[in-house]
Amino acid sequence: MTTKYLLDESRIPTSWVNILPDLPGEPLPPLNPGTGQPAGPEDLTPIFPMGLIEQEVSAEPEIEIPEEVREIYKLWRPTPLIRARRLERALDTPAHIYYKYEGVSPAGSHKPNSAVAQAYYNKQAGIDRLVTETGAGQWGSALSLACRLFEMECEVFMVGVSYDQKPYRRAMIETWGGTVHRSPTDLTEAGRSQASHPSGSLGIAISEAVEIAAKSPDANYALGSVLNHVCLHQTVIGQESIDAMEMAGEYPDVVVGCVGGGSNFAGLIYPFVRANLRGGRTTRFLGAEPAACPTLTKGRYAYDFGDTVGMTPLMPMYTLGHDFVPPPVHAGGLRYHGDAPSLCALVKAGMVEATAVRQTEAFASAVQFASCEGIIPAPEAAHAIRATVDEALAAKEVGEERVILLGLSGHGHFDMSAYSAYHAGELEDLEFSEADMDEALGRLPEAPSIA
Amino acid sequence: MTTKYLLDESRIPTSWVNILPDLPGEPLPPLNPGTGQPAGPEDLTPIFPMGLIEQEVSAEPEIEIPEEVREIYKLWRPTPLIRARRLERALDTPAHIYYKYEGVSPAGSHKPNSAVAQAYYNKQAGIDRLVTETGAGQWGSALSLACRLFEMECEVFMVGVSYDQKPYRRAMIETWGGTVHRSPTDLTEAGRSQASHPSGSLGIAISEAVEIAAKSPDANYALGSVLNHVCLHQTVIGQESIDAMEMAGEYPDVVVGCVGGGSNFAGLIYPFVRANLRGGRTTRFLGAEPAACPTLTKGRYAYDFGDTVGMTPLMPMYTLGHDFVPPPVHAGGLRYHGDAPSLCALVKAGMVEATAVRQTEAFASAVQFASCEGIIPAPEAAHAIRATVDEALAAKEVGEERVILLGLSGHGHFDMSAYSAYHAGELEDLEFSEADMDEALGRLPEAPSIA
Repeated sequence: MTTKYLLDESRIPTSWVNILPDLPGEPLPPLNPGTGQPAGPEDLTPIFPMGLIEQEVSAEPEIEIPEEVREIYKLWRPTPLIRARRLERALDTPAHIYYKYEGVSPAGSHKPNSAVAQAYYNKQAGIDRLVTETGAGQWGSALSLACRLFEMECEVFMVGVSYDQKPYRRAMIETWGGTVHRSPTDLTEAGRSQASHPSGSLGIAISEAVEIAAKSPDANYALGSVLNHVCLHQTVIGQESIDAMEMAGEYPDVVVGCVGGGSNFAGLIYPFVRANLRGGRTTRFLGAEPAACPTLTKGRYAYDFGDTVGMTPLMPMYTLGHDFVPPPVHAGGLRYHGDAPSLCALVKAGMVEATAVRQTEAFASAVQFASCEGIIPAPEAAHAIRATVDEALAAKEVGEERVILLGLSGHGHFDMSAYSAYHAGELEDLEFSEADMDEALGRLPEAPSIA
Repeated sequence: MTTKYLLDESRIPTSWVNILPDLPGEPLPPLNPGTGQPAGPEDLTPIFPMGLIEQEVSAEPEIEIPEEVREIYKLWRPTPLIRARRLERALDTPAHIYYKYEGVSPAGSHKPNSAVAQAYYNKQAGIDRLVTETGAGQWGSALSLACRLFEMECEVFMVGVSYDQKPYRRAMIETWGGTVHRSPTDLTEAGRSQASHPSGSLGIAISEAVEIAAKSPDANYALGSVLNHVCLHQTVIGQESIDAMEMAGEYPDVVVGCVGGGSNFAGLIYPFVRANLRGGRTTRFLGAEPAACPTLTKGRYAYDFGDTVGMTPLMPMYTLGHDFVPPPVHAGGLRYHGDAPSLCALVKAGMVEATAVRQTEAFASAVQFASCEGIIPAPEAAHAIRATVDEALAAKEVGEERVILLGLSGHGHFDMSAYSAYHAGELEDLEFSEADMDEALGRLPEAPSIA
């Protein structure tokens, strides 16, 4: 009885899947917030290299992966596809549950898939230093690793409260040679203006990183989710999943992943979405988000800023309002007010479903998963596990041998304090405030209606 | 250019390699400390099941791995063999460096290889509960995982100071359903007698665990290293390494691993040792131990207790004295006063070499390894990395295409505070006291001389 499906490294994908030409409906370009006109490359050149800007707007269905990037992917890719037989037995379900595990990367999540690509294109453009922000630390550590592998410098503005609470993530970033700043700093105007908020926020940290990158000719900015090129890089996950499922002799009826900014879920499903659109497949896609930050299930489809303080182009997406502050759930990677525009377009068109999961339910399923499969999942991935369990139980209800593919985006080794809280019975289901959301939605920027 | 060599899971070994019949010299049995006579199975039945006792003394060269154990090994085995090409380039060495990575197990080290086997034989014997001790937490978490997979209870006596300093290891044990006690407890006589030492010690924790196991008909004790059956279970590492090296078309000139109690290193090298003895190979074997706890390089070859307080049979081994207290180096898994008797016999016979590594050197090499290969190693494994780097540089010196196999026993995700100390320049090279060692060696139990 086979448990793991491992592709040979010659089968690391040779191109990324660009979903943009397949998106339904009229193209909705990002808008320059000053002019209200479509944002062009010139809006992005101060902080991104042309290689990535071209990917951001490309109409090519596939984009070749540079050999140097594939060489680095070989350090951990292809990642394993594993049949969760013990979980199936525990649930007593006829469903077949497979999970694609991205936690085998050195940084412990899917994030290096894009970090390595972004470092490569910046290095090609003569950039020697990347600046970014990080909250929980997944993205900051992934970019630090990528920069080290390309012999570049990496500067990370880490949200103050995370900097204090997550010293081990910080040590990880430093082990790969990155520099970590406790944000807000006095290194930037943005930081100095926020000195009265010493615990910091992702919004402040983004502003600091962008400011440094925009001012420094040798430095660029790097973003870990949301943008088209980031989702693009993550499609190695879905492509490998298709090949490995073929080894297993199955094809998923439903694909489940967790959604924060959306890059993990997008990378998992876009190759399957294309197979639906072009290959006649009928797979369902289910994104799991925190009930405390229910962007896809409760947000409004509108143009909004990508960041909290309003520095980015306006993007068409489901949003809770760019200055809405989600409750501090442990799945820090899912605490984002919007979602990747490409993913939102698919949700809007009814081609992708979403579900909201409460964090106590997520952790209960994560502990069950760990008890069956061994791996202790990241809190983000725990949301997808809960949605998977619900799918498997629904399949049992109707007696269906449903094939479920779960994207397990990372391990929880740096999130054990959340498990401690769960075991101690101290984990709460944090509620978001509908009134706060309504107020935040009332502060959406002026832009054409798209709903 | 291939980087990873992955065996299909059908190639998980079907038997363990038992080195006992191949050991050089006269057999040296463990001795009952009361009678001075060879310890028999009856000395062990109160705390171990007969299946493991038979393995402890078996003369069979191979012992079949039960199918139930192999099924669980499939959750993470075979583990990858990886060519460290980027490290080779950084060292500018003609050596070929391969590493066998055990950190992909759910507990993050090689420990589950034996924990799963021990849980299985106990379950077969009708035992529903295992009791053990843990220092840094690697073994306690591995046994908790194994017990969960066989639906057994697991009770872990965790050294007080580790319990306080390593809450995340504790959360890991609890996530797999294990119960963790802060040792010394008031649950045992041993614990109550040590109430004046609230920070605890491994010696006290062992005493507590053994006491509970000896008194409880439904419970047994489990040990994570040193004993023959533990080393036996770990030989899946070396066997897979031989097969994967064959995929790579090479055979190691030298095999390097870290040595604490010895089970990781033994499991790595014993299949190669047999190939030397029976197959005419001439591979060298190099064990790396901390300079602060230099058992193999500075210890005396003598009969000594396996535990600190003197409850176990006397074992023939290199020892620093059973009550010698090594300095608190971060590689907690290497802080043991003795070593596996089987390994010591090979060292004594000159068939295995040992080297002592200072912890600042170990961490410097670990950071270089992480910068090249991505993976952040456990402090224990860092010692083996340093010895590997030294071998690779020696090969460069003489212009030799030396093939080096490194056993990378685990990742450092739960040891990042040590990396923080290293980055902050606060890591010290702790010295052990020769005077303390001499005194401890003066307290060796009465037993026949073997040196």
